[in-house]
Amino acid sequence: MDSRANVSDTLDLSAIFDELYPLCRSITGSGTRRSLEIIGRHMPLEIVEVESGTQVFDWTVPPQWEIESATLTGPDGKTVVDFADHNLHVLNYSEPVDEKIELGELQKHLHSLPAMPDAIPYVTSYYAPKWGFCLTDRQRKTLKPGTYHAKIDSRKFKGHLTYGVAELKGETDELVLITSYVCHPSLANNELSGPLGLLSLYHKIAQWPKRRYTYRFLLIPETIGSICYLAAHGEELRQRLKGGAVLTCLGGHSKILNFKLTRADVLDQPYSVDHLARHLADVDPQGWKVRQFTPTSGSDERQFCSPGFNLPMVQIARTVYGQYDEYHTSLDTKEFMRIERVEDAAVRINQFFMAFDFEGQTLHNLSPNGEPNLGKRGLYPSTNSPLTWRLSSDTVFDARQTLNQILQILSYSDGNRDLRGIAEIVKAPVTQLVPVALQLESHDLVQRGARA
Amino acid sequence: MDSRANVSDTLDLSAIFDELYPLCRSITGSGTRRSLEIIGRHMPLEIVEVESGTQVFDWTVPPQWEIESATLTGPDGKTVVDFADHNLHVLNYSEPVDEKIELGELQKHLHSLPAMPDAIPYVTSYYAPKWGFCLTDRQRKTLKPGTYHAKIDSRKFKGHLTYGVAELKGETDELVLITSYVCHPSLANNELSGPLGLLSLYHKIAQWPKRRYTYRFLLIPETIGSICYLAAHGEELRQRLKGGAVLTCLGGHSKILNFKLTRADVLDQPYSVDHLARHLADVDPQGWKVRQFTPTSGSDERQFCSPGFNLPMVQIARTVYGQYDEYHTSLDTKEFMRIERVEDAAVRINQFFMAFDFEGQTLHNLSPNGEPNLGKRGLYPSTNSPLTWRLSSDTVFDARQTLNQILQILSYSDGNRDLRGIAEIVKAPVTQLVPVALQLESHDLVQRGARA
Amino acid sequence: MDSRANVSDTLDLSAIFDELYPLCRSITGSGTRRSLEIIGRHMPLEIVEVESGTQVFDWTVPPQWEIESATLTGPDGKTVVDFADHNLHVLNYSEPVDEKIELGELQKHLHSLPAMPDAIPYVTSYYAPKWGFCLTDRQRKTLKPGTYHAKIDSRKFKGHLTYGVAELKGETDELVLITSYVCHPSLANNELSGPLGLLSLYHKIAQWPKRRYTYRFLLIPETIGSICYLAAHGEELRQRLKGGAVLTCLGGHSKILNFKLTRADVLDQPYSVDHLARHLADVDPQGWKVRQFTPTSGSDERQFCSPGFNLPMVQIARTVYGQYDEYHTSLDTKEFMRIERVEDAAVRINQFFMAFDFEGQTLHNLSPNGEPNLGKRGLYPSTNSPLTWRLSSDTVFDARQTLNQILQILSYSDGNRDLRGIAEIVKAPVTQLVPVALQLESHDLVQRGARA
Repeated sequence: MDSRANVSDTLDLSAIFDELYPLCRSITGSGTRRSLEIIGRHMPLEIVEVESGTQVFDWTVPPQWEIESATLTGPDGKTVVDFADHNLHVLNYSEPVDEKIELGELQKHLHSLPAMPDAIPYVTSYYAPKWGFCLTDRQRKTLKPGTYHAKIDSRKFKGHLTYGVAELKGETDELVLITSYVCHPSLANNELSGPLGLLSLYHKIAQWPKRRYTYRFLLIPETIGSICYLAAHGEELRQRLKGGAVLTCLGGHSKILNFKLTRADVLDQPYSVDHLARHLADVDPQGWKVRQFTPTSGSDERQFCSPGFNLPMVQIARTVYGQYDEYHTSLDTKEFMRIERVEDAAVRINQFFMAFDFEGQTLHNLSPNGEPNLGKRGLYPSTNSPLTWRLSSDTVFDARQTLNQILQILSYSDGNRDLRGIAEIVKAPVTQLVPVALQLESHDLVQRGARA
Repeated sequence: MDSRANVSDTLDLSAIFDELYPLCRSITGSGTRRSLEIIGRHMPLEIVEVESGTQVFDWTVPPQWEIESATLTGPDGKTVVDFADHNLHVLNYSEPVDEKIELGELQKHLHSLPAMPDAIPYVTSYYAPKWGFCLTDRQRKTLKPGTYHAKIDSRKFKGHLTYGVAELKGETDELVLITSYVCHPSLANNELSGPLGLLSLYHKIAQWPKRRYTYRFLLIPETIGSICYLAAHGEELRQRLKGGAVLTCLGGHSKILNFKLTRADVLDQPYSVDHLARHLADVDPQGWKVRQFTPTSGSDERQFCSPGFNLPMVQIARTVYGQYDEYHTSLDTKEFMRIERVEDAAVRINQFFMAFDFEGQTLHNLSPNGEPNLGKRGLYPSTNSPLTWRLSSDTVFDARQTLNQILQILSYSDGNRDLRGIAEIVKAPVTQLVPVALQLESHDLVQRGARA
Repeated sequence: MDSRANVSDTLDLSAIFDELYPLCRSITGSGTRRSLEIIGRHMPLEIVEVESGTQVFDWTVPPQWEIESATLTGPDGKTVVDFADHNLHVLNYSEPVDEKIELGELQKHLHSLPAMPDAIPYVTSYYAPKWGFCLTDRQRKTLKPGTYHAKIDSRKFKGHLTYGVAELKGETDELVLITSYVCHPSLANNELSGPLGLLSLYHKIAQWPKRRYTYRFLLIPETIGSICYLAAHGEELRQRLKGGAVLTCLGGHSKILNFKLTRADVLDQPYSVDHLARHLADVDPQGWKVRQFTPTSGSDERQFCSPGFNLPMVQIARTVYGQYDEYHTSLDTKEFMRIERVEDAAVRINQFFMAFDFEGQTLHNLSPNGEPNLGKRGLYPSTNSPLTWRLSSDTVFDARQTLNQILQILSYSDGNRDLRGIAEIVKAPVTQLVPVALQLESHDLVQRGARA
């Protein structure tokens, strides 16, 4: 694959995080564009622009939003909050304002969290024209009556919405889509963990010796971005997409990664990607769990799985909304997220897609009448005694595990199921069976066949 | 519907009960006829007569039974029991008798309940010619040896079996059948709760703004009555019946109403009426539960669900045989039954059939590609902040429930399922989703289609 | 059936055990042949010979093994172990040896069980040429340094593998196969319980008044024997076999008998024999349980269920490998096995196959419209009172059980299922329903029909 040459082998996710974190991303605008440029230095992102006002299904691409600066000044002339200090201080997509205003009236434009007095909340109003400031509740309580000066130097204009795409070609045109979003300002777990995990995953998949599927990577503003992408590529995805994942919230305290399954799964017509996810959660409950699809919360899987598309897209996350109070506040920081948790997620999601690349390839036992004579091939202990099986401490014991997996793969490789199907029967992770299956292939005892 | 005009809006179930209770009903005879006349004052019952001797499948309609009076007089000339005091004192369908008889011999004709010494048991012998008296075990133990005079002034003759039918027309000829029985003498829960509940339900269904199905109401003597009805209308029911219920034992102490599901359900081929019943028991276990079909006990569903018909008829009951000792004794009274429990049952069974009237109408999302923009229709909060979702006490919180149901109905309205199907996915009572679905219809976001 | 005449009605399993136990059976050789001759005195076994060197699928029939004597003599000239004392003392299929050997070198040819110091282990090496002695670990620890004389007078030559077959003809050519193995030397539960149970079962099935299926009985050396049988008869079994069982380990402490289900069952395509086994385990958990198929341990079902054949063969056992420490040692004795446990197994497996002989015959209610009038046929109590049902101590109560089963069979005999299907619905053992079904047949109320 020529794209492999373009990819650096050493990624410093921590340094890339530090570059990205301060930028004021939104669903449009230069914060998002600069973020894609930074990520694009480490993977070959094609940048796509969609004009404001474009009709995309039931939606209209909003005007582009740019903000230069914003300050709220107190009656005493001192700065209360400054956009330059933290970009969450301004309601995202604020209208411009330059107004003297009494505290009582100002309060309608202030946002804070009484239950989390030290957190600046993240508040947006993309489609209803509003302006506002966000601040800690502790600070808000200190505000004295008087006249304040609210000044937001922002503008909205007919510009563009921006997203980025990369692709790793496989042996077939069948597609796997891996997406995350770039639209939240200074938020770590619920923003940067996704693009950084996607970037690391890109590097891992680029290094596979071969890929059956073609892998496409997409970084978009949430909701309106995926709706734009579907408006342009929905029909292609309907034809070619075999599976994929929306990556979100890959950091934080949880050790378990979780799959939000597809809409089709909740309707009892699961996709292959659902089956594989359920399998891993079933045999490795310390590592993975599954959640049912719901349209009531989540990320871009809400759009990919909308009834008109119903695509085989799961969401993969670690610590999600509802599991951490820091969500959508200034406390969702690098320390909360933890870079190593994002990298751990990328490692395991890579294993997931390696197994996914094997889905649907049936296994055929080439010596199906009775058990093959494993002894003459050196695959079976030649002396049979209670020592061999039960009471001994010799190394034969370890071989027993492998022998069992050999016997299991042989027994169930009758052309009716793939390796994951066998793994489900024997309740072992499919990843563990892959090397055994390869050994049997090398002895001409099993052979992979066409899609079941 | 012209029938609505015939229906009084104010029903005094308690007063009607008091009229019906003293009558000596049986599977034929004037007690049953008078009962149908009384009920017929409150709903337009058509009276049907079936002649004695008519062959109905494996059965023969028995002779009509009439009883004028019955007394058992003791050796001292005093009356031991008198039919005029309580009609349970006579074995139902007794042969006439006028005989002097020693106590020892008389005992073979007496029935009492040692375990319930103050209850008169209800005993019948419709097909084997017998005579007998029933009394409390306490009284029976006081009987002195000597000669008794047993006198029962009854007769059996070639007459008729009688039942009553009413109908509320709907938009289609597809039929819902609601039945109960009139054949037990002075018994409250296990007799009058059924016809009274059916009468109240008739009034409620008559007031629906529209009915998709035609609703037929049937009051018959148990077993032989439903066999007669099936002999005459079984083929029609096979063609037209979409669902229905046998109402029995709607009073008593239990708060939960229960469905006895159809025979088809136990054979893993449930009807729509079974699915709806299971759904309600699943999401509202404090209100409803389900029992499996059994042919070994129950009411007329045993006939409607016999293998030759296998109709979609559930039984709906509150406090059934096995749950109360008063069953089939003089202690099954109005006080045990409680009129308000019967009315509560009618209210809830009415909700059940309102939902049933929606069964099988698929829902179609008219804006299926991505989520529709709910904000521009005023169906979505326009500012998105942690306050909106989690920490605030404002009224937005209540709206969240509705918003979730909007998103759920939109997501699953893909023409493959009806509203109950969606309710099952989201684990909410279908009755709760009806108003939300109507709101989405009014915004042209969903549309009801043909039967799935 | 003419074969019934050949069969003695009185079997003394204990005496037959005592004849068989001392013989040194192996996968070939005269010990196995003499065992088949002894059993053949009690059932008409046809003896089949397969020549050494015959290619059977992936295997080659090994040379015949014969052993005359074997002794290990100590440095002091005393006999350490002697094959004449216990045939487990020699590694089964040992090469001949006549060698003076130092203790250190000898240890490589000795086998004992440190964790079971008083047990002689059973060790084999059929395909890798080895020699060895087995002894208790307690004795092994007493061995003094010095020169030992190892002498095994055995030989391997181009001879035969031997097995035995008997058959009881039925009304059809559809086949039931019942097998066990003859290849272990002096081992009781894990050898003789199988052939003895099979022999007893042969006698029971021979006495059935009629058999729908033809019953074939097979006694073979384990693994290589069943592979030989499949090489010769596999295609016939594919065509004709409807079900069967491998009998193994029918003695020992467990009260419950267990079915190891077929390979097809674990692949969610269970056979009739699996359904019946699951049914019995479901309704009679004190009597039966089921285990999932696995190719990793077990007996000849591993070959019969190999993917090329996938036959409807369960394994039936009582106390299996992993449940008793005595497995494959000299402690697996008659006392451990217990003759009465083997006979109890035969009784219950006979009931299992009696029920199996009914599998697939649909039942048809000849009076399906409404309930038939049972009263006029004397199948129903004619007086209906609370006494009849609940509070009385009269004999009617017992009749209620039968009446319920009558009503259940009538309700579910609609030509869509067999008696076991009905038993599953009503959660009663199918064996209990057989007499009731026969009673209904005699009243022309139900009729057995063709395969569902």
